Amino acid sequence: MAVKKAGEMMDLSPSEAREAIRRKEWTGPTAGIARGFVQANLVILPVDWAFDFLLFCQRNPRPCPVLDVTEPGDPVPRFLAPEADIRTDLPRYRVFRNGILEDEPLDIANIWRDDLVGFLLGCSFTFEGALLEAGVPVRHIEMGVNVPMYKTNIPCRPAGRLSGPMVVSMRPVQPDLVSRAVTTTALFPAVHGAPVHIGDPGSIGISDMTRPDFGDPVDIREGEIPLFWGCGVTPQAALMASKPPFAITHAPGHMFIGDRKDKEYSVF
Amino acid sequence: MAVKKAGEMMDLSPSEAREAIRRKEWTGPTAGIARGFVQANLVILPVDWAFDFLLFCQRNPRPCPVLDVTEPGDPVPRFLAPEADIRTDLPRYRVFRNGILEDEPLDIANIWRDDLVGFLLGCSFTFEGALLEAGVPVRHIEMGVNVPMYKTNIPCRPAGRLSGPMVVSMRPVQPDLVSRAVTTTALFPAVHGAPVHIGDPGSIGISDMTRPDFGDPVDIREGEIPLFWGCGVTPQAALMASKPPFAITHAPGHMFIGDRKDKEYSVF
Repeated sequence: MAVKKAGEMMDLSPSEAREAIRRKEWTGPTAGIARGFVQANLVILPVDWAFDFLLFCQRNPRPCPVLDVTEPGDPVPRFLAPEADIRTDLPRYRVFRNGILEDEPLDIANIWRDDLVGFLLGCSFTFEGALLEAGVPVRHIEMGVNVPMYKTNIPCRPAGRLSGPMVVSMRPVQPDLVSRAVTTTALFPAVHGAPVHIGDPGSIGISDMTRPDFGDPVDIREGEIPLFWGCGVTPQAALMASKPPFAITHAPGHMFIGDRKDKEYSVF
Repeated sequence: MAVKKAGEMMDLSPSEAREAIRRKEWTGPTAGIARGFVQANLVILPVDWAFDFLLFCQRNPRPCPVLDVTEPGDPVPRFLAPEADIRTDLPRYRVFRNGILEDEPLDIANIWRDDLVGFLLGCSFTFEGALLEAGVPVRHIEMGVNVPMYKTNIPCRPAGRLSGPMVVSMRPVQPDLVSRAVTTTALFPAVHGAPVHIGDPGSIGISDMTRPDFGDPVDIREGEIPLFWGCGVTPQAALMASKPPFAITHAPGHMFIGDRKDKEYSVF
């Protein structure tokens, strides 16, 4: 097992990147990996929770845009990547029992069950290539860290047994580039779209920007405005609040990499 | 009961339009009614079919974009119109038993059940205002008839027990306005978005444009190109193919009118 460096991962194809991850040659966050291809959040639940969860996503499309849903017991996301396996192809997982985070394993092959359904949700990493091409710098990529994510006081619309607060990802942007960041990401509604909030973190319940609830803090330079996008970690906050008996997710920032191109998710 | 004329319906508010419909003062198609407000397709199924149907919509977002889902037994679409009742507020319904169209009543209050879930799906009538504002004429509005809809040979992605062909709506457009029609509607991904097919009806299995499967035929003038959009009647084709024991839909073109504005469904 040869551990890969970040630079080696950037230009891999999605299947090469998944293979490196499956071999545990890469166990870190996936921002910037297999550039140009879609990345996805993962939520796995028993089939008797599947309707509640799909409805939760339908009612909260900004944080929870659904890209693919697997058949019960089938670990293959046939729409996003028909050769992939969601049990082994993400760098790190989170296992929840009764809403409590119990483990963060590198694969979940040994705890897979025949009644599990996987949901792959759009991820803002997918529009970061478009931001960079549009001349909008992305701080956490510049710094080589995970994107900062925060729990907010914005309630999600409940669905069945599921409820919880919206989680957002944050990117600081210079004032003259805020409009461009908004219009560029608005064109990607299937991967969170435009920001849900711009400026004043306090008014959405974020008290300390230097201490994100998930991921890493990033530098916010003089005059920069924080832009907040709906985040696919939102279901993890809902799992903690709603306590289904068993659930598995990706570890924040450690995404599934699909075979479809970023550009397939753009309106234009 | 005073029957309304089409001209009187155009400028009503959504709640006024629904009240006229509830009183059976309007029993026709809804294109152009309560201009500026969202319209929606309706599918009602027993709750044990709800997951299959929501998954079918997730897998076929162009014809089946979900705008609201009611709670089992609750006839109120609380997101789209919290004062409305889906049992009485559409001008005409279709009742299916085992996939067979059995009745087309003006309301469904007497056959409502506690296990029914209503799904409201985006309708292309919602972007017709934007087309008109962009200078793209809409032929079926000009002619005062229902939009023509066709079954195609494009298969939907199946979900559980549900499968079937995509149904499309058609609007003929002059060559110099095709690009504008595409870009204008692409900005409304939640109400079908851009056309799924442009030109040659035969290649998507439409043999006779003068005989639509649903709605009315419209004139196609010399040089005009037919543009085909995913259509919310697609679930009706799936119900006929997949034969759930009981289902209710809107009659094609006879939509639910919500309180939200068309523009809320535009990316910009």
